[in-house]
Amino acid sequence: DEIALPRPRLAPPDALAHICTHDHRQRLIHALGKSFADSVRMFARDVPHAPDVVATPTTEAEVTALLDWADGAGAAVIPFGGGSSVVGGVEAAGCDGYRGVVTIDMTALDRVLEIDKASRAARIQAGIRGPALEKRLGEAGLTLRHFPQSFANSTLGGWIATRSGGHFATLYTHIDDFVESLRTATPAGIMESRRLPGSGAGPSPDRLMIGSEGALGIITEAWMRLQDRPKFRASASVLFDDFLRAANAVRALAQSGLNPSNCRLVGANECLVTGVNDGSAEVLVLGFESADHAVDAKMARALELARDHGGRVDEAGLSGAQGHKHGAVGAWRQAFIRMPYQREALTAYGIIQDTFETAITWDRFEDFHRNVMAATAGAIEAATGRPGLVTCRFTHVYPDGPAPYYGFHGLGDRPRLLDQWWTIKRAVSDAVIAGGGTITHHHAVGRNHMPWYDRQRPPLFGKALKGAKKVLDPHGIMNPGVLVDPA
Amino acid sequence: DEIALPRPRLAPPDALAHICTHDHRQRLIHALGKSFADSVRMFARDVPHAPDVVATPTTEAEVTALLDWADGAGAAVIPFGGGSSVVGGVEAAGCDGYRGVVTIDMTALDRVLEIDKASRAARIQAGIRGPALEKRLGEAGLTLRHFPQSFANSTLGGWIATRSGGHFATLYTHIDDFVESLRTATPAGIMESRRLPGSGAGPSPDRLMIGSEGALGIITEAWMRLQDRPKFRASASVLFDDFLRAANAVRALAQSGLNPSNCRLVGANECLVTGVNDGSAEVLVLGFESADHAVDAKMARALELARDHGGRVDEAGLSGAQGHKHGAVGAWRQAFIRMPYQREALTAYGIIQDTFETAITWDRFEDFHRNVMAATAGAIEAATGRPGLVTCRFTHVYPDGPAPYYGFHGLGDRPRLLDQWWTIKRAVSDAVIAGGGTITHHHAVGRNHMPWYDRQRPPLFGKALKGAKKVLDPHGIMNPGVLVDPA
Repeated sequence: DEIALPRPRLAPPDALAHICTHDHRQRLIHALGKSFADSVRMFARDVPHAPDVVATPTTEAEVTALLDWADGAGAAVIPFGGGSSVVGGVEAAGCDGYRGVVTIDMTALDRVLEIDKASRAARIQAGIRGPALEKRLGEAGLTLRHFPQSFANSTLGGWIATRSGGHFATLYTHIDDFVESLRTATPAGIMESRRLPGSGAGPSPDRLMIGSEGALGIITEAWMRLQDRPKFRASASVLFDDFLRAANAVRALAQSGLNPSNCRLVGANECLVTGVNDGSAEVLVLGFESADHAVDAKMARALELARDHGGRVDEAGLSGAQGHKHGAVGAWRQAFIRMPYQREALTAYGIIQDTFETAITWDRFEDFHRNVMAATAGAIEAATGRPGLVTCRFTHVYPDGPAPYYGFHGLGDRPRLLDQWWTIKRAVSDAVIAGGGTITHHHAVGRNHMPWYDRQRPPLFGKALKGAKKVLDPHGIMNPGVLVDPA
Repeated sequence: DEIALPRPRLAPPDALAHICTHDHRQRLIHALGKSFADSVRMFARDVPHAPDVVATPTTEAEVTALLDWADGAGAAVIPFGGGSSVVGGVEAAGCDGYRGVVTIDMTALDRVLEIDKASRAARIQAGIRGPALEKRLGEAGLTLRHFPQSFANSTLGGWIATRSGGHFATLYTHIDDFVESLRTATPAGIMESRRLPGSGAGPSPDRLMIGSEGALGIITEAWMRLQDRPKFRASASVLFDDFLRAANAVRALAQSGLNPSNCRLVGANECLVTGVNDGSAEVLVLGFESADHAVDAKMARALELARDHGGRVDEAGLSGAQGHKHGAVGAWRQAFIRMPYQREALTAYGIIQDTFETAITWDRFEDFHRNVMAATAGAIEAATGRPGLVTCRFTHVYPDGPAPYYGFHGLGDRPRLLDQWWTIKRAVSDAVIAGGGTITHHHAVGRNHMPWYDRQRPPLFGKALKGAKKVLDPHGIMNPGVLVDPA
């Protein structure tokens, strides 16, 4: 009640009234995501872009009816899954030209509709959150094994729409590869692809929707590729004295074909911050898992490669089945799970804390890393007048390059936190794009990253995407300001 | 000279005259691909759709200049790599509404421009053929390891534009996954994506071009992900008494996470035809390879799984480093290499011989397979009045389903071969689409598969693709009749 919101500009038609609300609290909850900027603004009771209506459909037909209504009423539509966007993906900024904003909360579409054990796949509604999904699949002895940091508070549809990065550090890094087929509601109608294990028939329809961030339609359900639950595991941690030397070890591992499920390189600074160690060493957290066969030989070879590159195996942390919960491995795992929850407490003290992630080829990595670290440190000092802390880890790695994930902390001034944060955000994003990286490996584009996405994206692809959007969303009501530049 | 061609309707501008020709033989060579229908028509001296001009650019600037000329002149453009299309992808059918047809032969753009050993990637011109590519990469100790059956007579750009299927039976089945970034010349300009190991920034620009079959532009170069040359290998063959039982073994293997590089199940009928054995058993050809570590443990586990499903390991064929060249494995490998070259000889005898391929989920496979086998046999008999032979193998397999590859032989009547073939082709394609499969796993859509691609493709995706094409190719000159329905 401390936060005033403008009077809603839209009323739903009678037929949809039972799934729509103007409730103050619901409008607030659906006004922002979970970025640092969101946290600051919520803390400052400054919520500039709340939706007029929050709709919670319980069937796909209701999703379609909502889109029809919004399209006819000239309202913008913001698809909303778990609301965990850290890039301004679910906020109604940029919707001024519309007669109102309807946020469609998909979390009531939360069922596993069908399980095909032979093909190890399931048809799943888009609004299901991670824990409910894994529980239901677990009853059938299966798992999606996609655990983004937001797992508990994000949805399958959100993962697919944002090309979420998950559990596996190599091979199946994004949700993309687990998508067998999709059903999407667009203002122009339903688009559904065939369930195909592999196809060579033209450009992939699914790949147009994967990463579309609600700008082309709302994913309503997906057939997802599943896995058996792992029975064999091995985990270990390896210490290095130098981050770039450790990066070379990771490169050797990424190019070995061993495909570790975990291969997270945590920089010494981050080890200190997260309590993994005293900051005296870089730690490589390695893991293998399989439902079919022992993985010890793979781990042995991986450790051999790590030693060849100057790594010291942390014998205390080396263990079998439950090893991923102990030692440095376990400390990092705990820190990883806790991280997002610390932000709100820190914000109250005026601490600016954020992360950004990218990917870059190995040949450019060293220069890129040096420049990004320096740009980030420089930007914190320029914005706040005080030195800050910059950390780096690799969350995912590829044969052709790593996906570095940077974190930073700085002590800001409470009234200016948002400006200070934007100053830093702009500087680091400029450094990432100038260095040849991607503006996002798995956090998505949203509204916050649009200026840099525009610089990264081939201009003709931007126009082609706009051409496709014109067909699927003729009046441009879907998540305006995201991915597709206004006409 | 036996074959008359219409007088060319187009003359290139002076600036492009040196890379363009009206030469009779060049027009003939570029008039057809390598399908059964192409072979019959060439044999019958019936070449209805030769291009007016064959252009052979030596630089990307020349490709762009050719597109500019054609766009201004109202001419259709047909991109041509190695000319190995078996789906009518390079033939000028459906170009009647244009003022002429220019076929752009890309094979003079055949250089490896840059090798990045750190990221194991290379920047490669699109017109290079398989052997030249592997030779050049081999000098740097690297390999693309993409060996479609057309390897010697097809090009990198053709592979990418058609989502070619290659060497690996699992995991990296299509060329798609080896593409790091692309450069494409379109009538609207050059589109170039960033080199990124992984990105989550919106729908993938490359995935729009991968499989675009020349309908959106001409791929001029690509950064490709490479591999080290394998040092460790294991190969084996396993015999089964029953195809469906063998399919279950393949399913277990595909879901095991062992990711064999070779996992080809060859049906007994095909074993007989290709001389792999006397047709008394189904043969599963298994292979593992690695540049980094021994693969014997993987093979041992794979054979254990095969035995669990009733397989008998063919001890004679079980061997190490050179095993892939001996025994049943070697016999099948030789047959695989020879297959495409037998067609012309068979055509002279009136033998209809063709293949088609698809993919289907495991839960539907048995019914699908039975129906497709029956439809094919029935169609041969209906078309020719005589029983024919239908064979099946799995070329690629996925955790969620196989990619069955069917072959058929029938004795036709020389003057009616083309009609008889189309009768069979229509029936088998109907069966594939009705059963839920894809009209192509890796042969592409071309002109031949368009009616079935239209049925398989989500209608809204077809429209979105047309919206994208309108931007990249405003006058619709690129490979008309392929992928995008005429306006």
